[in-house]
Amino acid sequence: MTIEDRRAQEAPPCLLASRQARAEATVVRVRHVTIGGGAPPVVIAGPCSVESREQLLATAAAAAAAGAAMLRGGAYKPRTSPYDFQGLGRDGLRLLREASEASGLPVVTEVMSPEEVELVADHADMLQVGARNMQNFPLLRRLARCARPVLLKRGVSATLAEWLLAAEYLLAGGNSQVALCERGIRTFDSEMRNTLDIAAVARVRELSHLPVLVDPSHATGRRSLVPAVSRAALAVGADGLLIEVHPDPDHALSDGPQSLTLEGFAQLMRSLDQPRRHVRAPSPDHG
Amino acid sequence: MTIEDRRAQEAPPCLLASRQARAEATVVRVRHVTIGGGAPPVVIAGPCSVESREQLLATAAAAAAAGAAMLRGGAYKPRTSPYDFQGLGRDGLRLLREASEASGLPVVTEVMSPEEVELVADHADMLQVGARNMQNFPLLRRLARCARPVLLKRGVSATLAEWLLAAEYLLAGGNSQVALCERGIRTFDSEMRNTLDIAAVARVRELSHLPVLVDPSHATGRRSLVPAVSRAALAVGADGLLIEVHPDPDHALSDGPQSLTLEGFAQLMRSLDQPRRHVRAPSPDHG
Amino acid sequence: MTIEDRRAQEAPPCLLASRQARAEATVVRVRHVTIGGGAPPVVIAGPCSVESREQLLATAAAAAAAGAAMLRGGAYKPRTSPYDFQGLGRDGLRLLREASEASGLPVVTEVMSPEEVELVADHADMLQVGARNMQNFPLLRRLARCARPVLLKRGVSATLAEWLLAAEYLLAGGNSQVALCERGIRTFDSEMRNTLDIAAVARVRELSHLPVLVDPSHATGRRSLVPAVSRAALAVGADGLLIEVHPDPDHALSDGPQSLTLEGFAQLMRSLDQPRRHVRAPSPDHG
Amino acid sequence: MTIEDRRAQEAPPCLLASRQARAEATVVRVRHVTIGGGAPPVVIAGPCSVESREQLLATAAAAAAAGAAMLRGGAYKPRTSPYDFQGLGRDGLRLLREASEASGLPVVTEVMSPEEVELVADHADMLQVGARNMQNFPLLRRLARCARPVLLKRGVSATLAEWLLAAEYLLAGGNSQVALCERGIRTFDSEMRNTLDIAAVARVRELSHLPVLVDPSHATGRRSLVPAVSRAALAVGADGLLIEVHPDPDHALSDGPQSLTLEGFAQLMRSLDQPRRHVRAPSPDHG
Repeated sequence: MTIEDRRAQEAPPCLLASRQARAEATVVRVRHVTIGGGAPPVVIAGPCSVESREQLLATAAAAAAAGAAMLRGGAYKPRTSPYDFQGLGRDGLRLLREASEASGLPVVTEVMSPEEVELVADHADMLQVGARNMQNFPLLRRLARCARPVLLKRGVSATLAEWLLAAEYLLAGGNSQVALCERGIRTFDSEMRNTLDIAAVARVRELSHLPVLVDPSHATGRRSLVPAVSRAALAVGADGLLIEVHPDPDHALSDGPQSLTLEGFAQLMRSLDQPRRHVRAPSPDHG
Repeated sequence: MTIEDRRAQEAPPCLLASRQARAEATVVRVRHVTIGGGAPPVVIAGPCSVESREQLLATAAAAAAAGAAMLRGGAYKPRTSPYDFQGLGRDGLRLLREASEASGLPVVTEVMSPEEVELVADHADMLQVGARNMQNFPLLRRLARCARPVLLKRGVSATLAEWLLAAEYLLAGGNSQVALCERGIRTFDSEMRNTLDIAAVARVRELSHLPVLVDPSHATGRRSLVPAVSRAALAVGADGLLIEVHPDPDHALSDGPQSLTLEGFAQLMRSLDQPRRHVRAPSPDHG
Repeated sequence: MTIEDRRAQEAPPCLLASRQARAEATVVRVRHVTIGGGAPPVVIAGPCSVESREQLLATAAAAAAAGAAMLRGGAYKPRTSPYDFQGLGRDGLRLLREASEASGLPVVTEVMSPEEVELVADHADMLQVGARNMQNFPLLRRLARCARPVLLKRGVSATLAEWLLAAEYLLAGGNSQVALCERGIRTFDSEMRNTLDIAAVARVRELSHLPVLVDPSHATGRRSLVPAVSRAALAVGADGLLIEVHPDPDHALSDGPQSLTLEGFAQLMRSLDQPRRHVRAPSPDHG
Repeated sequence: MTIEDRRAQEAPPCLLASRQARAEATVVRVRHVTIGGGAPPVVIAGPCSVESREQLLATAAAAAAAGAAMLRGGAYKPRTSPYDFQGLGRDGLRLLREASEASGLPVVTEVMSPEEVELVADHADMLQVGARNMQNFPLLRRLARCARPVLLKRGVSATLAEWLLAAEYLLAGGNSQVALCERGIRTFDSEMRNTLDIAAVARVRELSHLPVLVDPSHATGRRSLVPAVSRAALAVGADGLLIEVHPDPDHALSDGPQSLTLEGFAQLMRSLDQPRRHVRAPSPDHG
């Protein structure tokens, strides 16, 4: 990094992420899938963690059959305790690539460290910044120079201004393909895992041209609430949903209580009007 | 109060407000209007404060014409500062009664003190417990012995358990006509006036048989967000909406920034599928 | 209440509770005890609830012997559940009076309703507004016209501005004998019962001339933390402490886990430099 | 990283950071300075950001003269906006080394990325993990294999369990020289920059053997409150203080409003009993 990089850049008259800088909605393209800009909402489904080939391929096939547009799954997992399952790492990335090709679904997965961006970008179609890393600025700076779209989750105690300024690190660094994801904030309430800030989705739409998705699984932490909250998210205007699905949630290595079963996910998709039948044929052109 | 009253009552095996105590949904009846139990969602509209005869009658007529089911308006106002407008009190109650009769809309208004319950109940069809008074137990005990249905708002930092236990004071004391209202909780976020806890609506439905409404006006504090958040509330399964409407929000004595204009409210109602045309003819039988 | 009362009073150029309105510290006098204005910090000790004559007299005697300046104890208890012990009411007030006279300690107790202010004021030397009632404005208006000093606890989600405006209801209504009490706020943390906002004590001192006490018992909910937090409160400049003490905490009807034993309280008092030996002889002149 | 590293380690019967695992207090040694284990509290002082040679050397000299035990200062700065000053980076590290040698004070500075750990460890005596990176697990894993003590700040919305589990990443990975630092949590309150959780200091002491420091500058965001809050922190039992000091706070590139002047810092040190005269002679043996 040069001295010039280190010193602050000149701030633009208004933030690049703001509506003032760009009135029309940004469309994020992940292979054949488009997010935002009035496109039908996308549903991104998959397990919290990639646990095995069987688990992932079964989930991807079921997600595609039910109408999901993309596959999600974690290979590098940020875990509160060092003694919890930390993810399959590079092996998990290979399985995600295989499941993506088998199902035709583009795949999004989390990256936790600048050092791993290149490797993860070789295997995934979209890179996720998790809530804990929303203000990991070295990671954001590295992703700004990466040729993959980014899914930027809101930190559990981030204000909207802080969230949009985290996106600004990506935009100002050269990557305009950024989708935001509201996944619940931390409040005094302990009935749910987090508190979904549904009004923030509508408010961010006013402030910014970037698409906004909602993660009802992390927001609630309770499988039974995912369908109702998914409907609310689409009604408020979210550009998509990020939903945890597992073939056997009771034996999941992480996030079992908030994961839908394959059949539960299919039921949810049938209950939503808009996002159904969003899958396209597998694209052969992915590098 | 006797010694017997003062000592704790025997707790029932499960809370009266819980689904365990009563599986089927409670229907709250406010004159001809029914809330809960699968009835179409009700929209309760009106100004934050009753300010004048003209303001209230115009709002009530417009609310009725647009399809509101009930009228709201404050005569006794809980205000953070003693130097803010404190409401018209008894005069406000008379105006609410007049507006109710003119428009055919039953009226709900807040009561702040046990001493005022009788007077307010003489003028209103439903009594509201505001967020600041959710744990005003002398008030709840008095309302439990009142023959009017109660709208119980969630306190800004109340857990779901505390909210349902506040309702339990009403149920255990003899008043089973209780509707809950989620109106946003206090969190670190300062972009909105409060944070609407939309998942709580779905969760309370699992825990309790009482109907649940949503107040998008207080939850967001921003007029522009009320329509999107209203749609989300209905999508998540709310039994109704409580919306602030004012003929001239810029000159309102309270809550102007979150109040819809009369035309804005009519537009909102046209945009909602379900609750339209809910008004019935004025009932002549109100005492 | 007349129309004039109902309409807002003219606001003064600055709040009566502010340092701008009054530079010198307010001294609150509760019989022979002085709070604030550079007086040695007072310790107010006693049980959460008055449970019996034996319990209260033993606690009062031990508190006095250890150096407490005042006695606390609840006769009317705000309880989250209607099935919890609600306090002894009028009988509890009589016991507080008796314990006060036996020990020589002035007594503070909570009042929950405007209707009960007169009765409670007949028995207690200082009236407490609990955290749940900080914005119970009819109660504050009634206490403003009462000839007893008031201990105003901060609401669990009240900002400093809201807290000082609640005090303003008392001051503007004619009662300038107001002491504030920080007792912890509600945050995401669940390790302690509340989060003691220690910096608020120093900040309120800058903003207001009113004395500020700290309640380490409610703030932490854990007996083992009360001594360390008490020392911190005095170090930050609190004018006093409010501490729960019980002869047999394991069998207390409320707040057992946060109550000190009689011996634990005596140890705490020996560990504090300043407030020791604050008791004076019983005053015979109490009406 | 091998597959073995990636899979979760076997959890010990109790956390290494807990009192169950180790009853006696951990002493952290930073060159000649000892933190914890009953040693007199240390005061770590310095600017938020290293801005220039003059600024840093003047601050270090004044800090040493006033009795500070260590020097702090940021070379890599986590800034909410990409347009804010991002720190001098490598040049800042060199200045910190120079200031440390000139003043005799060991230096602590923040590291934000695993890639920078080696470089920062070459220049600093202790490495700081900032609040935003408390759950940056790749960073923690790298620091676990570093031969420098670590100052682990609590995340703004981290529970005590999450904080201690972040420390566990360090301990389990091989670095037992860990000091914790409470710097305020994010709550609804907006009067202060954060809410100092003073009781957490006492609670962490019960749960863990690691030393705990307090940062009153970030906790309050207000210079005027730093002295009172510092006294409270020492009274509650903190093992040290982390205080922002700047020769000209009004022109600081970051955190000016919460920085003490050099004279303000000297006054603060004179007002504290315990930590005075903690400086030792410069140690010649630092590599």
